[in-house]
Amino acid sequence: MDPKTVSECLGIQTDGHLTIGGCDTVRLAKEYGTPLYVMDETTIRNALRSFRTSMEQHYPNGFSVSFASKACSFKEMYRIVNEEQCTADVVSLGEMYTALQAGFPAEKLYFHGNNKTAYDLETAIGYGVGHYVVDNRSELLRLSRIAAMHQAQVKVLLRITPGIDAHTHDFVKTGQIDSKFGFTLETGEALQAVGEALSLPNLTLCGVHCHIGSQIFDEKPFAHAADVMLRFMAQIRDTYGVTLEELDLGGGFGIRYTDADEPLPYGEYMALVSDTLHKTAKELNYPMPRIVIEPGRSIVASAGITLYEIGHVKHIPGIRTYVNVDGGMADNPRYALYRADYTVIVANKADMAPTETVTIAGRCCESGDLIQEHTSLQPCEEGDILAVLATGAYNYSMASHYNRLPNPPVVMIRNGKARLVVKGESYKDLCRNDI
Amino acid sequence: MDPKTVSECLGIQTDGHLTIGGCDTVRLAKEYGTPLYVMDETTIRNALRSFRTSMEQHYPNGFSVSFASKACSFKEMYRIVNEEQCTADVVSLGEMYTALQAGFPAEKLYFHGNNKTAYDLETAIGYGVGHYVVDNRSELLRLSRIAAMHQAQVKVLLRITPGIDAHTHDFVKTGQIDSKFGFTLETGEALQAVGEALSLPNLTLCGVHCHIGSQIFDEKPFAHAADVMLRFMAQIRDTYGVTLEELDLGGGFGIRYTDADEPLPYGEYMALVSDTLHKTAKELNYPMPRIVIEPGRSIVASAGITLYEIGHVKHIPGIRTYVNVDGGMADNPRYALYRADYTVIVANKADMAPTETVTIAGRCCESGDLIQEHTSLQPCEEGDILAVLATGAYNYSMASHYNRLPNPPVVMIRNGKARLVVKGESYKDLCRNDI
Repeated sequence: MDPKTVSECLGIQTDGHLTIGGCDTVRLAKEYGTPLYVMDETTIRNALRSFRTSMEQHYPNGFSVSFASKACSFKEMYRIVNEEQCTADVVSLGEMYTALQAGFPAEKLYFHGNNKTAYDLETAIGYGVGHYVVDNRSELLRLSRIAAMHQAQVKVLLRITPGIDAHTHDFVKTGQIDSKFGFTLETGEALQAVGEALSLPNLTLCGVHCHIGSQIFDEKPFAHAADVMLRFMAQIRDTYGVTLEELDLGGGFGIRYTDADEPLPYGEYMALVSDTLHKTAKELNYPMPRIVIEPGRSIVASAGITLYEIGHVKHIPGIRTYVNVDGGMADNPRYALYRADYTVIVANKADMAPTETVTIAGRCCESGDLIQEHTSLQPCEEGDILAVLATGAYNYSMASHYNRLPNPPVVMIRNGKARLVVKGESYKDLCRNDI
Repeated sequence: MDPKTVSECLGIQTDGHLTIGGCDTVRLAKEYGTPLYVMDETTIRNALRSFRTSMEQHYPNGFSVSFASKACSFKEMYRIVNEEQCTADVVSLGEMYTALQAGFPAEKLYFHGNNKTAYDLETAIGYGVGHYVVDNRSELLRLSRIAAMHQAQVKVLLRITPGIDAHTHDFVKTGQIDSKFGFTLETGEALQAVGEALSLPNLTLCGVHCHIGSQIFDEKPFAHAADVMLRFMAQIRDTYGVTLEELDLGGGFGIRYTDADEPLPYGEYMALVSDTLHKTAKELNYPMPRIVIEPGRSIVASAGITLYEIGHVKHIPGIRTYVNVDGGMADNPRYALYRADYTVIVANKADMAPTETVTIAGRCCESGDLIQEHTSLQPCEEGDILAVLATGAYNYSMASHYNRLPNPPVVMIRNGKARLVVKGESYKDLCRNDI
């Protein structure tokens, strides 16, 4: 199995060891210990550039690529995103604080979330956050009030639920209005909210936002959403006489976790979206909007792997083989949460054929702590290093302290050299707030 | 709805506010902020005492109640457990370190886990941990080797998978040998492991351990496990001429999350287990073993609640009503993980009837971040305080930083007075290891 099929940054060196960004993963495991998160900076930068390039090529009408940082939030990530001239989405004060600590400009942040508290909004206004993606009417009123108190004029987009199901291709599925997020388009709530936003003091309504799902492999629902949203913008113009300039199309671009996934080239996505917007704009005589897209997973997932040391291998004759590792659902929760698929590989035997069918079990005291079930793996034994591929998104960022396990360190590779970007937690760290 | 049906420590005061341990939850939310974990110390102590009392009454042959601290691990918990003359189970160095920092005696710790590393074992031996519940052959060999290196003699129990499914009442279900944990009884692996444990240097084999499941409401599978395990101890005597003295029956005692749950009185459990052991011991002419039980959830779950402030209430006509709160799957992950049932109540309207059917949505940027769906609730509005009941187990201990949300504080109530036992995380805490 060629790990390059999962991510370009992976390879196999002559001794059979898996490499990431040219570094021997077995050496990294030895040097930094396991469990270990490893990320390849070049892959992250290439993904950000590839989105920018696709946008430049297909959409000369103005755009922003905004990294959805909930996928992977630590200081070094915001530095990289800023250097690549992208903006960033944050969904909490924690993400905002981290970005600002890394020197990320507050005005390049989009503040998202379905339940921003008054304290969140006050703090964000104090920091000078660039855009507020307002989710609901309570927030709209609260933001106007708090902005007025601070004599601030804040830029606002409204999050709209456009009634599109990206996964079934059943584009106007009633079920999709069943969402905790946003103003509903179909019921007229969204149009009414626009009127209110326009009338409220201290708010500058810049545009509208939608997000149609996650891990999507088809460009058509994106184009459909772009069409629906631009028609809504025209309706706003016709109703209120206001031409909004910004259209935020959200994220949700699928990535390859296993061979079964066929990610969409961003160029194809952008070409179709651009074409759709041009046609609809022409039909409605609407000026081409500035667009924002919000890739998160697609920037970081393929750039990351998680390394473990294999412990006891438990063969239960006729039943199954459990390969125990020294991490689990505390650092790698997506299988426990979603039964997520991953590709796994024995890092020190990466050149061997995956002839075994095994279950990877975590070390937490819980039967459900599994990382993958009935998956192909090279023959392995205690002391081998296991790599779980494409874990750059939603692993570090979702990590818990379950079983009081400390969060592993994060190592970043650049030009074949590794550096620590997040230190591993100490046992003292775990107790620092205990009285 | 009377909250006392979920937990004895809850009540409703004359102004309609929910109380815990006699304290007004609405005042606690105001004083400490939300989200907030609140625990009632009396309930915890009563649960520990109730297990001890049941044991004393029904099992005069020697016992230990060992708190399974993965359910709720912070320093103050270990102090309480120690004062109540109980031992404690730990499953990691993190839990062990926390216990020792709290002054818990190392010799009263049982070290569990399916993948204890060499570093874990070395550290534990250095600390003088009392018992090692050895999960597999690799660990057995490793522990003997490391104990020898340190010239230590360590006490060992072997974890056995007895082939009992506690939930289906189908007592000898082959499926249950499909576990990442323990030595399999049916295949002869367990008996062989006992022989090896007896022959290895620096190990003192004290007994055997089993754990048949979680959230069990029927005493019969526990009694069946006790019978199977004692027969195994007799088989060990007959094979190796060694009479082991300790039988660890694990935990798994169900608690009441909602009205649908009917927990077993511990007395009934102990009476049946004791009766079974006496009969089997007599039949096999085996001396009554010292027994260990390991309650975790049943000690802390009912003692805890989680408080939130309600934000936007989103009514989608004909679809459903989302009640957004200022926490979610980061601090309360059991619904996202297991679709776990909880009872929810509007803390400042606890005397009102729960006439609405709503979905409680968390603040994380993820559709799946829900705390409960289609549940009964009092009519509520923004600014109300929501209490999720019976969250004392596996909420604080499973909390993550998803969306970079800091972990909430934990407040403990004693004699009607609240005190902080775990400080809430700061934003600085979140970034302390970022480089």
